[in-house]
Amino acid sequence: MNINDLKNSLDPDATGREMHELITELYPLCRSITGNGLRETLNRIRKDIPLEIHEVPSGTQVFDWTVPKEWNIKDAYVKNSKGEKVIDFHKSNLHILNYSIPVNRRVSLSELKKHLFTLPDYPEWIPYRTSYYKECWGFCLSHNQFLQLEEGEYEVFIDSTLEDGFLTYGELYIKGENEKEVLISCHVCHPSLANDNLSGVSLATMLAKHLATVSHRYSYRFLFVPGTIGAIAWLSRNEKSVSKINHGLVIAGVGDSGKITYKRSRRGDTEIDRAAVQILKQSMQDYEIIDYYPYGYDERQYCSPGFNLAVGRFSRTPYGQYPEYHTSADNLEFVHAESLGDSLTKVIEILHVLENNRYYHNLNSKCEPQLGKRGLYSSIGEDELVLLWVLNLSDRNHSLLDIAERSAYDFASIHLAAKLLLEHQLIAEHRRA
Amino acid sequence: MNINDLKNSLDPDATGREMHELITELYPLCRSITGNGLRETLNRIRKDIPLEIHEVPSGTQVFDWTVPKEWNIKDAYVKNSKGEKVIDFHKSNLHILNYSIPVNRRVSLSELKKHLFTLPDYPEWIPYRTSYYKECWGFCLSHNQFLQLEEGEYEVFIDSTLEDGFLTYGELYIKGENEKEVLISCHVCHPSLANDNLSGVSLATMLAKHLATVSHRYSYRFLFVPGTIGAIAWLSRNEKSVSKINHGLVIAGVGDSGKITYKRSRRGDTEIDRAAVQILKQSMQDYEIIDYYPYGYDERQYCSPGFNLAVGRFSRTPYGQYPEYHTSADNLEFVHAESLGDSLTKVIEILHVLENNRYYHNLNSKCEPQLGKRGLYSSIGEDELVLLWVLNLSDRNHSLLDIAERSAYDFASIHLAAKLLLEHQLIAEHRRA
Amino acid sequence: MNINDLKNSLDPDATGREMHELITELYPLCRSITGNGLRETLNRIRKDIPLEIHEVPSGTQVFDWTVPKEWNIKDAYVKNSKGEKVIDFHKSNLHILNYSIPVNRRVSLSELKKHLFTLPDYPEWIPYRTSYYKECWGFCLSHNQFLQLEEGEYEVFIDSTLEDGFLTYGELYIKGENEKEVLISCHVCHPSLANDNLSGVSLATMLAKHLATVSHRYSYRFLFVPGTIGAIAWLSRNEKSVSKINHGLVIAGVGDSGKITYKRSRRGDTEIDRAAVQILKQSMQDYEIIDYYPYGYDERQYCSPGFNLAVGRFSRTPYGQYPEYHTSADNLEFVHAESLGDSLTKVIEILHVLENNRYYHNLNSKCEPQLGKRGLYSSIGEDELVLLWVLNLSDRNHSLLDIAERSAYDFASIHLAAKLLLEHQLIAEHRRA
Repeated sequence: MNINDLKNSLDPDATGREMHELITELYPLCRSITGNGLRETLNRIRKDIPLEIHEVPSGTQVFDWTVPKEWNIKDAYVKNSKGEKVIDFHKSNLHILNYSIPVNRRVSLSELKKHLFTLPDYPEWIPYRTSYYKECWGFCLSHNQFLQLEEGEYEVFIDSTLEDGFLTYGELYIKGENEKEVLISCHVCHPSLANDNLSGVSLATMLAKHLATVSHRYSYRFLFVPGTIGAIAWLSRNEKSVSKINHGLVIAGVGDSGKITYKRSRRGDTEIDRAAVQILKQSMQDYEIIDYYPYGYDERQYCSPGFNLAVGRFSRTPYGQYPEYHTSADNLEFVHAESLGDSLTKVIEILHVLENNRYYHNLNSKCEPQLGKRGLYSSIGEDELVLLWVLNLSDRNHSLLDIAERSAYDFASIHLAAKLLLEHQLIAEHRRA
Repeated sequence: MNINDLKNSLDPDATGREMHELITELYPLCRSITGNGLRETLNRIRKDIPLEIHEVPSGTQVFDWTVPKEWNIKDAYVKNSKGEKVIDFHKSNLHILNYSIPVNRRVSLSELKKHLFTLPDYPEWIPYRTSYYKECWGFCLSHNQFLQLEEGEYEVFIDSTLEDGFLTYGELYIKGENEKEVLISCHVCHPSLANDNLSGVSLATMLAKHLATVSHRYSYRFLFVPGTIGAIAWLSRNEKSVSKINHGLVIAGVGDSGKITYKRSRRGDTEIDRAAVQILKQSMQDYEIIDYYPYGYDERQYCSPGFNLAVGRFSRTPYGQYPEYHTSADNLEFVHAESLGDSLTKVIEILHVLENNRYYHNLNSKCEPQLGKRGLYSSIGEDELVLLWVLNLSDRNHSLLDIAERSAYDFASIHLAAKLLLEHQLIAEHRRA
Repeated sequence: MNINDLKNSLDPDATGREMHELITELYPLCRSITGNGLRETLNRIRKDIPLEIHEVPSGTQVFDWTVPKEWNIKDAYVKNSKGEKVIDFHKSNLHILNYSIPVNRRVSLSELKKHLFTLPDYPEWIPYRTSYYKECWGFCLSHNQFLQLEEGEYEVFIDSTLEDGFLTYGELYIKGENEKEVLISCHVCHPSLANDNLSGVSLATMLAKHLATVSHRYSYRFLFVPGTIGAIAWLSRNEKSVSKINHGLVIAGVGDSGKITYKRSRRGDTEIDRAAVQILKQSMQDYEIIDYYPYGYDERQYCSPGFNLAVGRFSRTPYGQYPEYHTSADNLEFVHAESLGDSLTKVIEILHVLENNRYYHNLNSKCEPQLGKRGLYSSIGEDELVLLWVLNLSDRNHSLLDIAERSAYDFASIHLAAKLLLEHQLIAEHRRA
């Protein structure tokens, strides 16, 4: 089995349902950029793929950043003067401002309100908020809940710890025929948010599971890291081997029903960028290509000027462009098996381009070879035309992707034509220095 | 006389009529990629231009191809059971599947039908079919004729020979001031089809006739070759001198009433490509420029990666895009003197660009020269502006074609301005290494 | 004070009114390409800025040109047979064909008419005409005046001199931190025409006045020269130091109410071209960018191939595209303080780009620096994004102008972000060789 077989055999719907099931399992865990929720998540993923778990001690300097204290939380609530829990962490782990310090005190409503976050425009949704690098506490709640809070004294209780510990991340290296790597990275730090980014986590998991079963040219490195600090920590600890990364994708927000959006790498026209554009163009589905900008997910780190890696971002609707983003409405209903399966399929097709994008040279470069005597001449012009394109441009300077771009044939057709010509000894691979 | 005079003196209508007359004379001959019909055609052309005739023996290896046996035909018919000729080669040489082997047998209607070709969508037209490299036999007929065939036994008679012989082609070299060559190539293998390609043959003949009467910088090489195998044979036999070809045009399908279509060379932006675009742009007629694709006429061979010559294709409506293509409806009425004359004019204008496209340097490069004191300053700004463009861009790095492209003046105006400036010693030619 | 402060402190309206006042003062003088009207103009400008006056003797060879004789005029009129002045130079100095030779004779109406110029399409306007390099005489008048001329004898009197003398021009060099120069050039030869080019003269004067009060990186060279011959004379006399000119603008026609039009330098994409495009793009006003063509004002000389300087032209409505051009209707009402102030503001903004366009390198090039711990992280994403753009592209290869172009932030924002990052030691200037 190779990646071509994988591409052809994958059932997007069944796989999409499997991905949704993994999301469903991971959804209740209270993740953060450190702590036990993150560990439990990685351990669950290890059931599917042999993730290596790394623990980086709090206080470790990673480039301009310092690994923060580890945060854990057992319980959190706000009780009104009648002793009723008006906000309860156990009902939704979005209720707690992520990284809230421990608190046990009584406050007036006006004091409490300084620590409450709501979404007046979406009064039924709980926002998701964090305060990783500035110690404070707070609660998130629906605006409707907020409006029902009555004057009086409230009991605030947060049973959290913020102590020296570790930042945890997962890594999986799947060795290929050569040492050149494709990086697949997803952030795994958000609590109960399905699209952002359990969808990316499940796609990466499923992709790794399948890639492990097929042969491939590139080696693949999967990172399941807390956003920003996790990617920075990994880059800091692996600075010397980063140059092995030839291509990469940040996978995030791939389960919603919107069209696929590919964000180019900082370099803008690398092979991964062109492969993604090629696949989306020929997909006959709506899609969008956006240029690099220095914001977003961990492509910010991979594409920082000192690394400038060929890493693009694969998403559906971009973060912030759907109202459910970073709210309790980014839930299990917001992500769909169909979208998840489609996203995975497209990523595999992109990798298929990378895996098969080679240079050839035409062994009969002067005039056309006689296709007829080899049984390659069909009366249907178009079949023959794809062969002629590959022959005409196989001059050591055009890769199959170049040929697909110039001929407007899809990559898979160009690749099949090259395979046929190779079998008939009409072209030979040209290995570039 | 030089090519400028030729350009200015040519009467497109009279020349177009002369071209149509040549087509009319050549139309009845039964050409193929070898054989006497081809020889007779070349001999007729020799009345107008001193074509050199080459004969390549059957069996000669030319790159990946082998020169086929020579095909000749004297008679062919199908008789019904009453002894009536229901298909008769002498009525149209399209009736015979080109390269049909000799046959003399009786067959049933159902057996016969396996060897018949018609065009149900155009029931009055006879299709044109060939089988050069696979031995078989067949007849082409109108669908209406086909529908009238009754059950019964038919006598099939094909008095053809397919034997070792020669592939014949014509070549004419017209020496110019230097050894750099312009290639003009047309396929001469199709039987009674007027546009494809007696139109190209007549254009090349007329062009050669006129070029022989004027001085020119480039040497011109005209090829009248059977399609594909002829071009391949020529390239194979002249491999060492191919590098002299600096520019080239394949001429085909230039007599129909459609707009001119220029197909770029594989390199896409060579001087011939730019000259053609320039002439068509400024013609005020509708036209189309298409990118190279590895199909079509003999540009396929000239632009194969091992040669990659600067050869474009000059046509009117592209092959296959008019229903009369490869049918009996591509007849003497389908091609028009007006279109033929216009095509020839445009080709001469393109060659005029090549002949006159030089680099100059402004002898007063610092500030403008004073045009007024030389009588070159007109009160009409535009006259002066073309002079200023040539002066401003004549810096050894811009050819006259570059200047025409940048200034949007037509090439002829730029060329005239350069001539005037040269006479006034304001610019001098810059010969590039 | 530096140019940033100048940019921020300038009051366009007040300055525009001041510019209009200068135009009003200069308007009545009868300028030409030589003579006392030109000297008086330069002397008036010297009240505002310390212009150096240069006098080039008649007959001096300047490249392909010769400095003409000096022209001066005291009086000129045409009297009818009744002794009435029907044309009187003292009513408008446009009445005299500029550079008219002395005349004192009686002529018939028909003879007179050969020397009269009118604008039939604008019967109330007096045209502006010159004859610098061909000795003759003439009068310009409104077509209505012309139609009232009766048969009879006319007395023609022109009290002019055309004698060896000097061509006069003004020059001002304002030294900056380095020797690289920005050239600001305006033609100062037209008589009572307000937009063409007292507007340019007043803009250059005001700009020089302000630049002298602030620190700047570049040295600035201002030229107030008669059109064509003045620029040619200056280039001829300063040929060796021309290479110091790094950027330049020809300023002409900047007072009408039309949109700003920037004409690119011959090189087309120099820093001044890109700076101008950048400023106009972000101005939220209508504007037009036109490509170089070898006609117009003195950019023709600065962009002649032997110099090929990075000099663009800054105008509002281009010459010849408004009917008032070169007529008495290009008067004090045709130019507006608002337009003048706006034009000056835009030029200063363009110079602000040049002055501040530097390369930086990110001192934390591997991964993002932690903006939060430096108080640079705002909750409003957009503020932060401009910082991230500068950080991401500050890799020694992108100037601030490059960053503005790629990010679509305006240059001023990018420049402020760079300043902030510099203060926080997150970037450092990279000086290119």
